[in-house]
Amino acid sequence: MYTSKIDTLLESIRKLLRRGAYQNAKKIIEKLHAADVAYLYRYLNEKEQFAVFKLISNLETAAEILSHVDAPTSAHILTNLERERASEILKAMDPDDEVGILAEVSEEVREELLSFMSKSDTERIEEVFQYPEDSAGRIMNTNFFALHEEVYVSDAISELQKRGEDSTEMVFYIYVVDDRNHLVGVCSLRQLLLVPASTRIQKVMTSDVVSVFPETDQEEVARLVERYDLLAVPVVDHENKMLGIVTVDDVIDVIRYEATEDIMKMVGTGDEYHSRSVMHRARMRVPWLLAAFLGGYIGIQFLRMFDATLERIVAVAFFLPIIIAMGGNIGITSMTIVVRGLATGKIAVKELRKVVLKELGVALLLGILYGTALMTLAYLQFGDVSYLGFVVGASMLISMLMAAVIGTMAPIILHYLKIDPAVATGPFVTSAVDSLGILIYLGLATLVLI
Amino acid sequence: MYTSKIDTLLESIRKLLRRGAYQNAKKIIEKLHAADVAYLYRYLNEKEQFAVFKLISNLETAAEILSHVDAPTSAHILTNLERERASEILKAMDPDDEVGILAEVSEEVREELLSFMSKSDTERIEEVFQYPEDSAGRIMNTNFFALHEEVYVSDAISELQKRGEDSTEMVFYIYVVDDRNHLVGVCSLRQLLLVPASTRIQKVMTSDVVSVFPETDQEEVARLVERYDLLAVPVVDHENKMLGIVTVDDVIDVIRYEATEDIMKMVGTGDEYHSRSVMHRARMRVPWLLAAFLGGYIGIQFLRMFDATLERIVAVAFFLPIIIAMGGNIGITSMTIVVRGLATGKIAVKELRKVVLKELGVALLLGILYGTALMTLAYLQFGDVSYLGFVVGASMLISMLMAAVIGTMAPIILHYLKIDPAVATGPFVTSAVDSLGILIYLGLATLVLI
Repeated sequence: MYTSKIDTLLESIRKLLRRGAYQNAKKIIEKLHAADVAYLYRYLNEKEQFAVFKLISNLETAAEILSHVDAPTSAHILTNLERERASEILKAMDPDDEVGILAEVSEEVREELLSFMSKSDTERIEEVFQYPEDSAGRIMNTNFFALHEEVYVSDAISELQKRGEDSTEMVFYIYVVDDRNHLVGVCSLRQLLLVPASTRIQKVMTSDVVSVFPETDQEEVARLVERYDLLAVPVVDHENKMLGIVTVDDVIDVIRYEATEDIMKMVGTGDEYHSRSVMHRARMRVPWLLAAFLGGYIGIQFLRMFDATLERIVAVAFFLPIIIAMGGNIGITSMTIVVRGLATGKIAVKELRKVVLKELGVALLLGILYGTALMTLAYLQFGDVSYLGFVVGASMLISMLMAAVIGTMAPIILHYLKIDPAVATGPFVTSAVDSLGILIYLGLATLVLI
Repeated sequence: MYTSKIDTLLESIRKLLRRGAYQNAKKIIEKLHAADVAYLYRYLNEKEQFAVFKLISNLETAAEILSHVDAPTSAHILTNLERERASEILKAMDPDDEVGILAEVSEEVREELLSFMSKSDTERIEEVFQYPEDSAGRIMNTNFFALHEEVYVSDAISELQKRGEDSTEMVFYIYVVDDRNHLVGVCSLRQLLLVPASTRIQKVMTSDVVSVFPETDQEEVARLVERYDLLAVPVVDHENKMLGIVTVDDVIDVIRYEATEDIMKMVGTGDEYHSRSVMHRARMRVPWLLAAFLGGYIGIQFLRMFDATLERIVAVAFFLPIIIAMGGNIGITSMTIVVRGLATGKIAVKELRKVVLKELGVALLLGILYGTALMTLAYLQFGDVSYLGFVVGASMLISMLMAAVIGTMAPIILHYLKIDPAVATGPFVTSAVDSLGILIYLGLATLVLI
């Protein structure tokens, strides 16, 4: 759906809502794909979102729209519906989407919604909530298609037909289990069609199945899906009994989300899309800025130590920002290369030493280039202060080398301490690089010039 | 495959290669999944990679391994093979993977490889090379499954069986075309199984097909796949004739790649994973650092203007780094939020004004908080310079506001100029924020203190 179409749609829906022409608005909405309604939701305010949602009488459609809308929005809508209706809509959703929304509503609302559900549903949901937040268990769909290994292909097909359009989740793999419900194989729908109907499914299946545990990190699931080009991964317990599947569409969400989350953490903020208020956003950033502030404060103390140098040669102060900026630049780039490399698996842990050395090499080349450039400029403009050029050039080179070491080592150390490298790097690296840069520069200046 | 297993495998393969026990190494390699061999490749050096590849006699296996390995590595291997063998391996690959590798080898090698191919293959490949680099055409698979709308389901199934395991690409959708080969519908394998064999395929198909043009940007394709939870998107020409499909596994690669590429650009470098030499990496970063350098140079000139102020009150210089750092921090965060928001589609172009205002609000709150903190610290430590506390506090607040404006506006302006917002922001935003911060601070200091 393209922007021009969205604009027209938005306008007409808003107009109809304002006029109270709900039946007409309803007709438009119901003709759209659920994913398109969800897309429209981005442009509607909360009141409009809710008004549009109230128009949808069909339970399945309502459920589908909610599962396409982002979690905070759908939680908001669900919270404002009557509890009974809300729980009916939840029941019509895929189990993984249901859990995703329940994780977003307040605990109180969750309890109330669960009270309308059957005991088995409640138990299933509570079980899922025991898995860690970023684990496979949280996004697995417990509706999957598994058959006994001795079943014939003909039976498999008629079983599939019996289920019909009932289960909304896309079926592309049939999982094969033994007597004790252990996962023993997998077979694609296509493979089923390639053999005579009288074949036993165990003859068709691939017995080399890639599976994960419910506790497996979602990023790890994503990496497996990527590596083996899978459309779904089965989730098994520690006895190899099947619990659910994670499908590729959820994996795509994980990849998108993790990439954005990593970037946001690196630049010093949380996932701000999800918070609506300015106050809340500001509060999220306070700790990151505190790191920068403390780094700056240490910088002030360092500068104070060299008070006499600055007083005697004021031109020394002129070069402070450029030396800091170039070091900071190198530090952030090196850090990002390592953080991203570790996250995407492009950099293997065993290669880390090589990565550090390469970054150091790059910093050396760039440091020599720009250090010489700065030295030349300083001689041209401030030739009267002898050796100033040498001091600023050398300081820039040393700062850049130091920045490359800190930028690459900080995430590596965090990685070994089993702390997410993206969390604590951005502002910390900059702070460290800034204050050490000051120390290097002013130290050298004092040594050489005074 | 987990790290411990990789380590053991690596060791034994290396040992066997050293000993010249090629037959044994071959046995191990051939038992592995192609994706696992590709994973091992990350840990092998170029010589080992080539030696392992030479062991694989089966054409299909060789093709599969190459399509799992990253493009620069597979291009390197292919370049070192005899041309005839290389072109045979290429022919055994999926057309999209074939094109991907051909795009990586030198033009000379490409010509030589194409000379071993049939005229129709050469034409097909040359056609694909005419599409823009990041377009759907470049990653589409021209092996797809399309049937005439009047075909019966039974015929569709036997057609599928006839193709058998022949085409390696996963088939999950059957595309439906009319007499003139226009795409008119799509139907999943599962839908086929739900209706009697005597049904015409046009009765089963969904006629609402999401399709793209070969020129469509790969990111746009990814967004459609995400929005509609698709496993593949058909690529059609401007007459709606089908040319190929883009499958979800390629879409995942696009999402990963684009996210990393965006981050790398933002911090001021290209995709460095793909370049092996330190010299080349350094050269890639020169222009980004030049932006920082020029920004720093402007900063020097600004500082020079306030020479007298710095000479009279040396303490003014102490606060330079912290004011610059806090502004830089805000600028980078604001910029990242907008760049990522535009890339993922989370921020709609219509909302941009709201985003700018919110970022300004956040900067205001944070600026008041940290500005007051800095003012207090300055009074405590430098109480003898009257008004210094006020000047540094106010300068920090104003710098942070200015940084929020530049950080949000820079990518927005680039977006409107149809320049990729990620390209030109990181170092540019920092340079602008740094030098303007200097001007604000020293200007205010001169005004108030002198």
